Amino acid sequence: MKTLAEIASHVGGSLHGDGSVQIERIVHPSLAQGNSDLALILSPNAIRFLEKAKVLNVVLPAGLEGVPVPNRIVVERPRLVLAKLTQLFERPVYIPSGAHPTAVIDPTATIGKDVCIGPNCCVGPNSKIGDRSRLAANVTVGAEVEVGCDGLIHAGTYIGDRSKIGDRVIIQPNATIGGDGFAFVTPETGSVESVRATGEVRHFNTNLVRIFSLGNVVIEDDVEIGAGACIDRGTLGETRIGEGSKLDNLVQVGHNVTIGKNCLIVSQVGLGGSAKVGDRAVVGGQAGLPDHMTIGNDAVVHAQAGITSNVPERSVVIGSPAQPKRDFLEREVYLKKLPRLSKQLKELKQQIALLSEKLGA
Amino acid sequence: MKTLAEIASHVGGSLHGDGSVQIERIVHPSLAQGNSDLALILSPNAIRFLEKAKVLNVVLPAGLEGVPVPNRIVVERPRLVLAKLTQLFERPVYIPSGAHPTAVIDPTATIGKDVCIGPNCCVGPNSKIGDRSRLAANVTVGAEVEVGCDGLIHAGTYIGDRSKIGDRVIIQPNATIGGDGFAFVTPETGSVESVRATGEVRHFNTNLVRIFSLGNVVIEDDVEIGAGACIDRGTLGETRIGEGSKLDNLVQVGHNVTIGKNCLIVSQVGLGGSAKVGDRAVVGGQAGLPDHMTIGNDAVVHAQAGITSNVPERSVVIGSPAQPKRDFLEREVYLKKLPRLSKQLKELKQQIALLSEKLGA
Amino acid sequence: MKTLAEIASHVGGSLHGDGSVQIERIVHPSLAQGNSDLALILSPNAIRFLEKAKVLNVVLPAGLEGVPVPNRIVVERPRLVLAKLTQLFERPVYIPSGAHPTAVIDPTATIGKDVCIGPNCCVGPNSKIGDRSRLAANVTVGAEVEVGCDGLIHAGTYIGDRSKIGDRVIIQPNATIGGDGFAFVTPETGSVESVRATGEVRHFNTNLVRIFSLGNVVIEDDVEIGAGACIDRGTLGETRIGEGSKLDNLVQVGHNVTIGKNCLIVSQVGLGGSAKVGDRAVVGGQAGLPDHMTIGNDAVVHAQAGITSNVPERSVVIGSPAQPKRDFLEREVYLKKLPRLSKQLKELKQQIALLSEKLGA
Repeated sequence: MKTLAEIASHVGGSLHGDGSVQIERIVHPSLAQGNSDLALILSPNAIRFLEKAKVLNVVLPAGLEGVPVPNRIVVERPRLVLAKLTQLFERPVYIPSGAHPTAVIDPTATIGKDVCIGPNCCVGPNSKIGDRSRLAANVTVGAEVEVGCDGLIHAGTYIGDRSKIGDRVIIQPNATIGGDGFAFVTPETGSVESVRATGEVRHFNTNLVRIFSLGNVVIEDDVEIGAGACIDRGTLGETRIGEGSKLDNLVQVGHNVTIGKNCLIVSQVGLGGSAKVGDRAVVGGQAGLPDHMTIGNDAVVHAQAGITSNVPERSVVIGSPAQPKRDFLEREVYLKKLPRLSKQLKELKQQIALLSEKLGA
Repeated sequence: MKTLAEIASHVGGSLHGDGSVQIERIVHPSLAQGNSDLALILSPNAIRFLEKAKVLNVVLPAGLEGVPVPNRIVVERPRLVLAKLTQLFERPVYIPSGAHPTAVIDPTATIGKDVCIGPNCCVGPNSKIGDRSRLAANVTVGAEVEVGCDGLIHAGTYIGDRSKIGDRVIIQPNATIGGDGFAFVTPETGSVESVRATGEVRHFNTNLVRIFSLGNVVIEDDVEIGAGACIDRGTLGETRIGEGSKLDNLVQVGHNVTIGKNCLIVSQVGLGGSAKVGDRAVVGGQAGLPDHMTIGNDAVVHAQAGITSNVPERSVVIGSPAQPKRDFLEREVYLKKLPRLSKQLKELKQQIALLSEKLGA
Repeated sequence: MKTLAEIASHVGGSLHGDGSVQIERIVHPSLAQGNSDLALILSPNAIRFLEKAKVLNVVLPAGLEGVPVPNRIVVERPRLVLAKLTQLFERPVYIPSGAHPTAVIDPTATIGKDVCIGPNCCVGPNSKIGDRSRLAANVTVGAEVEVGCDGLIHAGTYIGDRSKIGDRVIIQPNATIGGDGFAFVTPETGSVESVRATGEVRHFNTNLVRIFSLGNVVIEDDVEIGAGACIDRGTLGETRIGEGSKLDNLVQVGHNVTIGKNCLIVSQVGLGGSAKVGDRAVVGGQAGLPDHMTIGNDAVVHAQAGITSNVPERSVVIGSPAQPKRDFLEREVYLKKLPRLSKQLKELKQQIALLSEKLGA
């Protein structure tokens, strides 16, 4: 329970109305029911819900403060306020405190202060779990792993040997950190090499020899990894996720990939082995980056893009094969013109035939 | 073991031959071996297998009943019969009965009658597991979760706090129900907003502020969720999967998504935050639906489609960007014509040059 | 620790310099630090790192042996040598030896010699684990499963009832082997059938009847399965992964799929039910193969390809819808020409108008 005045102060908004009202829940305006509900209006579109529902308290963007709701907090950037409000009203995931009796913790592991290790978790030899970090149930932490402070590792996640996880890292359920890289080689020239060299399959993958992964995964501070995401460890060196970057569910990160700082990698993206993503890049859902390719700083890659050459800094690319958005849109315009072009061509043909006839005559 | 007569009656087919034969296995016609095997012919293509294999008992569609097999059950819709036969001969997944001694069940949890809770499962405080529901091994159920009756939750699945799961729901292994939403905001204008407004990256994501997930996931009756699928919980409200809908493996469902009733969502589909899927929609494998967009009732979305605008009811869309199938096919026709158009244009140019010469002369 | 002479002999390279040097680590040339580091040069590009770093020992391809490094091993196929070196210096995943006391092993299971079964693993009734196989933590093995010798099953993996896993199989963490197939049928004609027959949605999926999976998964010798990958069991028969094939993370394999020998299936590929992949095929990341379709032996399918018809042996396909690479590249050429074609057409139109005027005059 927080008062409206406390909330206004926390989110940096200006309060109109009764600041002493106690708020229990943040809700979508269509779901506001009582005196302890605070409705959040993110955009002018949502104003219409105020009429239908019984809204007594509202947070809304500047310019809309005239709505007939008794208590209003007016803010500048409502989505940022959503972040602040959800932090204030967070409902932390249930993890029993302390080390659960069913957890299997190697005696050589170092466990920090106020750490929670849930039921059926394993922590391997020489691993360290930093202060206040929480491991939910059925988490497997290998050997010589370092997890920083204030981390949250959700149920079913695997963290492989020698991984280094920074502070305040959140890993969603069933993620795999530090699986082996997908790396094989044919003793002789293989089919893919053949296609690269000649455009045709002239050699065959009669044998696939495994390249073992000796490296590890490094996850810097304040990173978040989505549910079911897979981050392979490096072959010789490391796979690294830079500070503050956020990876969504089911993202695939190949061996030796480097992701910079503050990136957003949306669900189901695939990053091939040794690929590089710069700082602050945004990669849309289901996009793919092949082995050894690069996405530059601040680039924005659209969903489902299939990258086939390095993406420059600050560029915006789209399509499969991916191209600059400007080119893509231009191409779309011409594609839409195609039926008309085809028809015009036919007409010209007829006109020329007529002209030729006249001239020939 | 069932007799042919019992089977014919169960599937609503007409029996020709000896109804007293005891059947042990349903098999593909090419694998039929003995008197207790019942071969199932789904289409005329499969008739050829009858010659090679030793088939004594067969289920086959009307129109093919003349095949020289001693015992035949003739049916109208063989794929529906396949469903009925597989139900009849189901081999339920192995789960030890009762609550396994290694399961960690909070004393405040309510466990129904004839519930199975397998080895190393966890059930959190105030959660309820309905009658006859089965949890396989290594399942994690959080706090205040409700699982209905006759559910089947396979190994390694995570069900987050406050999730509500209806009756007869099946969740395949390693699924994540109720992970946090992927929601972040930049304090100032960010790169994606900049691209939306200007087409270029003029602002940078120097900081990513987390929006916490306070909501939950609601899965209605008779839903099935695939292996490794991820369903994020709502930010303030709920993420909802409608009655009877079926989601395949590795499907991603973002926070606050609503899926209607009786939908089929094929493997590796991605549904962005707050997206809406209507009733009875079919979404093909690897297709993507961005944040806040809608697929209408009874729409059919082809595999790998990349949706970029709302999909109307009953429409059929394909491609990335997705377009009505009719338009897509027309475009393909014109694209195939391109080399010819280019050649014709060249010819016309030459003809006009000739004409001009003549005229100029 | 191995001497340079031992290493040269193991990888079949020719040694130049001091063969008695003890090597502790294989490193990227930029990371070489001391006398016990062996740098590996895979391509001429990496030669530049030799100047910056302190490299005393190097493996490098023939033709580059003149570099000023004291101890050199010259090899023919460096990537193959990488495989051999990583095998030599492998750092096996941490799994406690023997059967962990927290593991739940059914008394009817047969456990071979020198098997490791980690904490919180389950092995169901009548299952067999072959000699020297290792199960990491939180692995669930169902009933009547056979795992061969020298296998490595990583943490969190599920292996369903009646699966048959060959020798030397590696399964990465959180994979699902033997989930149920995604198979449903509508009692009457459904929307997808309607679209196939008429191009339009004239029938509706008012009910979805489940087809149960009675079959199993067979994984032959020397296969590797990626983290989070999902392999559904067959409806009546089996889903089979052929000897030596390698599947990357998050790959989806539908029920009754057959994959041949020595295939490479890259991350996030989706293979629909009853699809067939021939021997030695390579399927690039995020590509999709619909139900019942075939990829021929030695075919190379590019990343993100969306296959819509059977792929012939040895062919190279790309795009969505997938087409032969030659056609795809030709189409790209014409698409790039489109603005010029459009402009030329406009010019011709003007020229013809002029000619007509002249002639008409």
